Amino acid sequence: MVLADELAKKQRSISVAEFFEKNKQMLGFDSPVRGIITTVKEAIDNSLDACEEAQILPDILVSVRRISNDVFRVVVEDNGPGIIPEKMPSVFAKLLYGSRFHQVRQTRGQQGIGISAAVLYAQLTTGKPTIVISRTDAKNRAHQMSLTIHTETNEPEVLSHEEVDWNLPHGTRVQLEFKSNIAARKKLLEYLKYTSIVNPHAKFRVELDDETFIYDRVSSEVPPCPVSIKPHPYGIELGVLKRMTAASDLPLGEFLVESFSKVGEKTALEICRSARLDPETKVSKLGLEYLNLLLDAMQTTKIPAPTASQCLSPITEDLIVKGMEKEFQLDFIKARTRPGSVYGGHSFIVEAAIGYGGKLQSDGSAVLLRFANRVPLLYQQGACAITNAVQSVNWKTYGVSQSGFPQGPLMILVHVAATSVPFTSESKDAVASIPEVEREIILALQELGRDLKTFLSRREKNKLQDDRARAICSVIPLIAAKVGEIVELPMPDTSLLEGKIMRRVVLKKSNSGGKVLIHIDNYTTKAQEISLYDISGDNAADATVPPSFVSDSDDEFTKIWKFTLAPGEAFEVMYTGLGGGMIEMQGVAENLKVVVDLDV
Amino acid sequence: MVLADELAKKQRSISVAEFFEKNKQMLGFDSPVRGIITTVKEAIDNSLDACEEAQILPDILVSVRRISNDVFRVVVEDNGPGIIPEKMPSVFAKLLYGSRFHQVRQTRGQQGIGISAAVLYAQLTTGKPTIVISRTDAKNRAHQMSLTIHTETNEPEVLSHEEVDWNLPHGTRVQLEFKSNIAARKKLLEYLKYTSIVNPHAKFRVELDDETFIYDRVSSEVPPCPVSIKPHPYGIELGVLKRMTAASDLPLGEFLVESFSKVGEKTALEICRSARLDPETKVSKLGLEYLNLLLDAMQTTKIPAPTASQCLSPITEDLIVKGMEKEFQLDFIKARTRPGSVYGGHSFIVEAAIGYGGKLQSDGSAVLLRFANRVPLLYQQGACAITNAVQSVNWKTYGVSQSGFPQGPLMILVHVAATSVPFTSESKDAVASIPEVEREIILALQELGRDLKTFLSRREKNKLQDDRARAICSVIPLIAAKVGEIVELPMPDTSLLEGKIMRRVVLKKSNSGGKVLIHIDNYTTKAQEISLYDISGDNAADATVPPSFVSDSDDEFTKIWKFTLAPGEAFEVMYTGLGGGMIEMQGVAENLKVVVDLDV
Repeated sequence: MVLADELAKKQRSISVAEFFEKNKQMLGFDSPVRGIITTVKEAIDNSLDACEEAQILPDILVSVRRISNDVFRVVVEDNGPGIIPEKMPSVFAKLLYGSRFHQVRQTRGQQGIGISAAVLYAQLTTGKPTIVISRTDAKNRAHQMSLTIHTETNEPEVLSHEEVDWNLPHGTRVQLEFKSNIAARKKLLEYLKYTSIVNPHAKFRVELDDETFIYDRVSSEVPPCPVSIKPHPYGIELGVLKRMTAASDLPLGEFLVESFSKVGEKTALEICRSARLDPETKVSKLGLEYLNLLLDAMQTTKIPAPTASQCLSPITEDLIVKGMEKEFQLDFIKARTRPGSVYGGHSFIVEAAIGYGGKLQSDGSAVLLRFANRVPLLYQQGACAITNAVQSVNWKTYGVSQSGFPQGPLMILVHVAATSVPFTSESKDAVASIPEVEREIILALQELGRDLKTFLSRREKNKLQDDRARAICSVIPLIAAKVGEIVELPMPDTSLLEGKIMRRVVLKKSNSGGKVLIHIDNYTTKAQEISLYDISGDNAADATVPPSFVSDSDDEFTKIWKFTLAPGEAFEVMYTGLGGGMIEMQGVAENLKVVVDLDV
Repeated sequence: MVLADELAKKQRSISVAEFFEKNKQMLGFDSPVRGIITTVKEAIDNSLDACEEAQILPDILVSVRRISNDVFRVVVEDNGPGIIPEKMPSVFAKLLYGSRFHQVRQTRGQQGIGISAAVLYAQLTTGKPTIVISRTDAKNRAHQMSLTIHTETNEPEVLSHEEVDWNLPHGTRVQLEFKSNIAARKKLLEYLKYTSIVNPHAKFRVELDDETFIYDRVSSEVPPCPVSIKPHPYGIELGVLKRMTAASDLPLGEFLVESFSKVGEKTALEICRSARLDPETKVSKLGLEYLNLLLDAMQTTKIPAPTASQCLSPITEDLIVKGMEKEFQLDFIKARTRPGSVYGGHSFIVEAAIGYGGKLQSDGSAVLLRFANRVPLLYQQGACAITNAVQSVNWKTYGVSQSGFPQGPLMILVHVAATSVPFTSESKDAVASIPEVEREIILALQELGRDLKTFLSRREKNKLQDDRARAICSVIPLIAAKVGEIVELPMPDTSLLEGKIMRRVVLKKSNSGGKVLIHIDNYTTKAQEISLYDISGDNAADATVPPSFVSDSDDEFTKIWKFTLAPGEAFEVMYTGLGGGMIEMQGVAENLKVVVDLDV
């Protein structure tokens, strides 16, 4: 038997850098290709966060270049506020170091791991240090450092540090080298496209070897930087409360007001009363038993939800719709931003959108776009609470077929904005199945599902009416011909009748006895703004309605009439002439237009 | 604009305990229910690992009890080697501390996080410390400590420490208290059932409130403890090689032999030759450029795969089949243990099994059982490389329908055994998509798929033959009756003919002229071991084949003949008597049996 003493000799501490070097897949460095995406993503997260904090319109350069057979150089450069030289080593070459972990507000970075993980991965695969340039002020020169992480201690190693000239007045540039066999071209452009949709104020210039791509900004307003707030009393853990009270020398009532958001004096007193605790007790004196009572009272007292607009930065319904409209051609788009909610003391907001039809594939599973804190999630869809939520909605209720995932020409976008997004791992690919979060996603999708149902059933109804009308119209000419035969007259023109049944705009041009007649009926249910073009040898000088414009060239006159026809209204113009030529209505949708030119 | 100086003030270190307190979902503590499962799992992992190291047959007690309205107490107690008191605080109350992280061999625990994470979660939800008792030797008393983690520093806090009497001569007992509203009863029993399948040498006693469940051991052999080996040269990262060479004062040739597994002097020289490096060079002197050449040479030189049997502990095909047979009733089971392989310098072996038919549901998706290092994986199936691999096999080739996942009465078991399992997160729920690992899983499943196909097509062929025979048999009596009619004779007995066509064992008993005749034909393709029971008023004293046993009671004689009939053989016995009574064949499957009793 091996004795405990022998086993004890092997017990020792593991540095966090050692841990993640061995478990790099947890950080999103499963494979070299993936590594490139993760690195770009982490660097851009930092750039966008920093620009938001400094209220700068971000101009970001991403460059991925193969510099030798199996080595790629990745550069990300921004015009952000820069990093002071004292902090550069720790920010880039120490895991679990950062400014955003301890703040209660929506940020892209929230772990203090991302970019340092990329530095760790670079030195692991090529042995090369990461080169960082940063400048905080036009008055000072830039600082350039060459950095690695000392794996056994997780401390930064500065291999070189010098002041250099740099073309930007402020900003940061990070350059890393990885082993890889291919650039993750397609995935990288996909990531940038989605990032640009949810960050309409940012401009990205992407250089892939010798090609350049621009994702320009569509808005020049920097979104307001979310403000760091105090934790909300709902869902806070006992262990955290215990630590907060132990560190405070305030009396209970004051402590509650000072330490939590949405707790005023009145609410504080209510909590104290409910917990049967004296508001004047020093909180540091409260034992575990009393803290339990206090926690229960905090959960059961009615406290308003946190003002999400302060600490969170949702994309908003309007911008989501615009973003989707810009990138995808859809017959139906609707977005919903849910009210703010809370899980485990963290504020969050769920936004969702549904697109339908258009150029989406009509068979196969719906397309799902996932976002967290304005960052697209590209991997691990199967592990994500968003996917779970999509699957647990009963889509059949809304007229969409479903086999686990909804099927058909459907696009679903979900954005989770939170002061702390509960990711399943450090690679930030998937949102963990937190019941409160899943519930909000489901509610958002159900609301949108109802709107989609209305759209689909209206479309179905229109289609039905259309089908019926079409059936009737197909027999009208036959009837007309028969009638004409019996009464021994030529077959009458039935187009007008058809137009009426089909709810179209019908134009009829005829020519008899040297008089040209143009007649237009609006049988649709909407007002139609029409530009009527009549091109022929006639100059229509005596037109009953004078054209708004006449042009001539080589014996041909183009006459234009512009007018609006309300539903049911008609327009008519007559002039002396020989007719012929061509006639055309503009402003009316193709599928609503019937042109009967009897003058040919 | 916010200046870089202001931003810098917020930059600071994050303790690993703080990080995981905030991101507890990464450790498998998404919800209170899940927390209970994760805690039990982490404690059992440690117990099984320690017992294996000490070569003890594990006796493990798991107890989950509701001790107040919303607090559960979880206790896990083992008879392992125990932990010396000096190490108890760090082992249980410091994240990233342990004995198995730095060893290259298959272990359940590999992160140095698990049990400390449970301690962190317990103190977070109830504020209560964890109580640990451990005893390393019958000669000494046990040590009991009450422990918490100081979150801001990730250092253990010992709240109390005393020597106590304890009933076990050696072992460890850990007791934690969590807030939760329900015990994860079903999932917990599922986890223990699967754990017991892959650890047939362990005994578990489970107490859930007032119920007790036993999962007994089915083998009394402790599997050999995998031996820690040196890293294999294939797939090792440059950064790791750089660190290894920097720390060594050996010449290159010797360094290669000393530092890597499967590298003997000859292989070392071959690597040096291929890299054009002198084997006598001090490795610490090699610059990055030369290390790159060395690494390339290490990858291209032919080196045997690591002896997996040393550092890994696969379950083996035989035991997998036995485990599945014990727990599930299946028509087909086959297991495959693949040869050892390597990813990123880590050895691994994939084992897989397929079960088909039996009591498995005939519609819906296949059942997938995932294991890593003998631990069942219960969550995040969608995020797992095992799931990916299952889905990327073309099951239709093997006669199984597929819609993403294979469909039908199919059970798939996959076990990944590795010196370091590439989990997607610290919660160890899912294996990351490492190409080498996925490839091995796919190969294992394809091999099994081919066996399944053979089984299914044979079954299909049998079914076809059966259907044809049935069709013929259904017309035989009609033909016979017709023939009988024509020749004016009574209809002959056609059962024997039918039995022959249907490949059955046909028993025929007849009685004429005071003589009873029993005739049995084996028309099947297998030898049949038959016990023939003949119960009637006759004592069969003059039987042409004497029965092996005769009993009488109330004028009734039970006569038994036991014999084996090869395919095509017949058995016949005749005796004087009145016949009647009943006759029965035992030992022949119901669906292969035709009994024609003409003596009624």
